[in-house]
Amino acid sequence: MSYRPIAFAGRSSIEQVEESTDFAPKFDDRGLITAVTTDADSGELLMQGYMNAEALMLTIRTGEAHYYSRSRQVLWHKGATSGLTQKVEELLIDDDQDCIWLRVNVAGGASCHVGYRSCFYRRVPVGEEVAADNENVALQFTDTEKVFDPEEVYGDAPNPTIL
Amino acid sequence: MSYRPIAFAGRSSIEQVEESTDFAPKFDDRGLITAVTTDADSGELLMQGYMNAEALMLTIRTGEAHYYSRSRQVLWHKGATSGLTQKVEELLIDDDQDCIWLRVNVAGGASCHVGYRSCFYRRVPVGEEVAADNENVALQFTDTEKVFDPEEVYGDAPNPTIL
Repeated sequence: MSYRPIAFAGRSSIEQVEESTDFAPKFDDRGLITAVTTDADSGELLMQGYMNAEALMLTIRTGEAHYYSRSRQVLWHKGATSGLTQKVEELLIDDDQDCIWLRVNVAGGASCHVGYRSCFYRRVPVGEEVAADNENVALQFTDTEKVFDPEEVYGDAPNPTIL
Repeated sequence: MSYRPIAFAGRSSIEQVEESTDFAPKFDDRGLITAVTTDADSGELLMQGYMNAEALMLTIRTGEAHYYSRSRQVLWHKGATSGLTQKVEELLIDDDQDCIWLRVNVAGGASCHVGYRSCFYRRVPVGEEVAADNENVALQFTDTEKVFDPEEVYGDAPNPTIL
């Protein structure tokens, strides 16, 4: 299926970008804009990714989250492999229009390729939880129950994590 | 005040990065890691920024959010000018450890230099809200009441938005 492109506005002034209704997203030198995705009901942060202009257009046109995968260098319809698509309940943009916020409902309830509900399944201790003379901080798992088995869902597909 | 550094772990394997308690954040070629900040109570996305190693260490040590300002190229103790500091209730890291999530309470209730509670005060219409033959998308304000007057708080300080 082909969709009509979205015509983004040029960026002419700070007032226009911050205070007007002009849709003037700022793509960086790689052609990408940061995307932050939260669960529309719980407010939980599910993932942080990137969109190129095509992914942003497809997200707007279809109401389903599309990203650009930096590790695989391809347009990425989230859930196309796993079935865990993200229905966009609300799409927002920040003051200087260099970040997109997606409030989504996730089919199947998981958003993370490791198998957890959210990509953020580990806490970093902070403030008084860390002794002032301790240099070593260990992460703490928040959610040790995986929602799905990645091997079952993704099979032999390469892991997107880059060291 | 000086703080003891945090010793980050090296990144030796995907399993270590994704499935262990090793704290091995990935800083990009600018020395930065993406930071996403939500309101600890409402789940609202307040801002998206960056941290360098020092900002991450200071956030952990003090329990108050520190960032690195790309536009001003300085360490940034959020709220140092405006008084709108962010107390970190919980700090989390994602699967491949290249994104930090801060769940915060904000003194004064505002996080955006434009004066709004959140930086994300405009919606992008999505899905059926946009006619298939319409190329032009106008943003919609969600929250037109400013919490503070930026001129009063920041005076003549340069606006951080870059066109």
